[in-house]
Amino acid sequence: MHRVKVRVVEDVLDANATIARANRDDFERAGVTVVNLMSAPGAGKTTLLERGLADLGVRAGVLEGDVQGSLDADRLASLHIPVVQLNTDNGFGGECHLDANMVRSALPALPLDALDLLVVENVGNLVCPAEFAIGEHHRVMVSSVAEGEDKPVKYPLMFRACELVLINKVDLLPHLDFDLERFLYHLDAVHPHVPRMLVSARTGEGIEQWRAWLQSRVALPSADEAVQAG
Amino acid sequence: MHRVKVRVVEDVLDANATIARANRDDFERAGVTVVNLMSAPGAGKTTLLERGLADLGVRAGVLEGDVQGSLDADRLASLHIPVVQLNTDNGFGGECHLDANMVRSALPALPLDALDLLVVENVGNLVCPAEFAIGEHHRVMVSSVAEGEDKPVKYPLMFRACELVLINKVDLLPHLDFDLERFLYHLDAVHPHVPRMLVSARTGEGIEQWRAWLQSRVALPSADEAVQAG
Repeated sequence: MHRVKVRVVEDVLDANATIARANRDDFERAGVTVVNLMSAPGAGKTTLLERGLADLGVRAGVLEGDVQGSLDADRLASLHIPVVQLNTDNGFGGECHLDANMVRSALPALPLDALDLLVVENVGNLVCPAEFAIGEHHRVMVSSVAEGEDKPVKYPLMFRACELVLINKVDLLPHLDFDLERFLYHLDAVHPHVPRMLVSARTGEGIEQWRAWLQSRVALPSADEAVQAG
Repeated sequence: MHRVKVRVVEDVLDANATIARANRDDFERAGVTVVNLMSAPGAGKTTLLERGLADLGVRAGVLEGDVQGSLDADRLASLHIPVVQLNTDNGFGGECHLDANMVRSALPALPLDALDLLVVENVGNLVCPAEFAIGEHHRVMVSSVAEGEDKPVKYPLMFRACELVLINKVDLLPHLDFDLERFLYHLDAVHPHVPRMLVSARTGEGIEQWRAWLQSRVALPSADEAVQAG
């Protein structure tokens, strides 16, 4: 039975990889840079997007992944950018992650040609989102200091899959038994030298750095586009 | 393709229910009450067990579910009670929940006959653990106030599946933009009148209430056992 289960899983991941490549092709044809933003529930992804995308100077959009509801998409409405809600709760109790096919199903609702940057806010979960590519160019995760300093060691795949770790809610550090040095030690143990930023969506600490990172990911227009724009 | 996926999921849940019933039979034969403890990563399950089980006056044990590692089991070692580690990371990137068969595979390592209470600490995740029965008698979840007041609405199945919600880290309330009334409003919207306790594993607030709840769940010895014990 275990063997069958493993084969089913491999088939699922195979199909996912194929669809992720198709998504990636569509993103590149449209000239849009795609960031997959992941974290545990309540780590602060949406607030970091509110702070990060406001008046960023690039044409940004958001794909909001949630099991159910549209609370986060509603919060982002004030940014006046394209926001599409994607719910994972059809049948079953709800999928705990986005996969490439779910993202693909949402693409027609997104004005890709009018975007430079698309952030996909994944379902809050530190396990499965790291296992399913969705066609993204970049993977970023948010780890809240309120979650404790052991998280990199307990969810190593997620911390390894990312190229940037936003260590959020640092304004709470004086009120927590959280040893930042120990967290960084664990982080470097599972993903040595991965870029990290200390941020607080509440106080604004580190937000300019996060915004600069987002801006720097947006590809310069290709020669063709520059000619057309001129 | 979607149809096939749904059928696979139904088969998996069917098999899980069968094995969960077998686990439950074993638990009842041994006279042990089993609590399935669930939460998002870093909500404080392990600390609430350290505080809740120390010198509780019942014969308690813990089954620790983690994707990888034994950090939590190591922390609980100081309680000098049976603790068994169950890792979900064989192959794949790791399962994001415990299922009945994983728990079954760990039962031989547990001295069930010598326990009154077994707490299963599930993998940190607000989605899938609620979908997989493991043979437990009671389901408890921990929601940290640092995660935000919208969690019941975003993960309704988890909040509905539980008979007790521990609202943890209330010592942080003065430092958060967390509206407790709003959280409770959301909680009652998805699971009206579910028992809830305000607790802080850090300051000890509410811990006596949590310990009393655990004690009250332990079944009185059956007549047979009482005779044998006499």
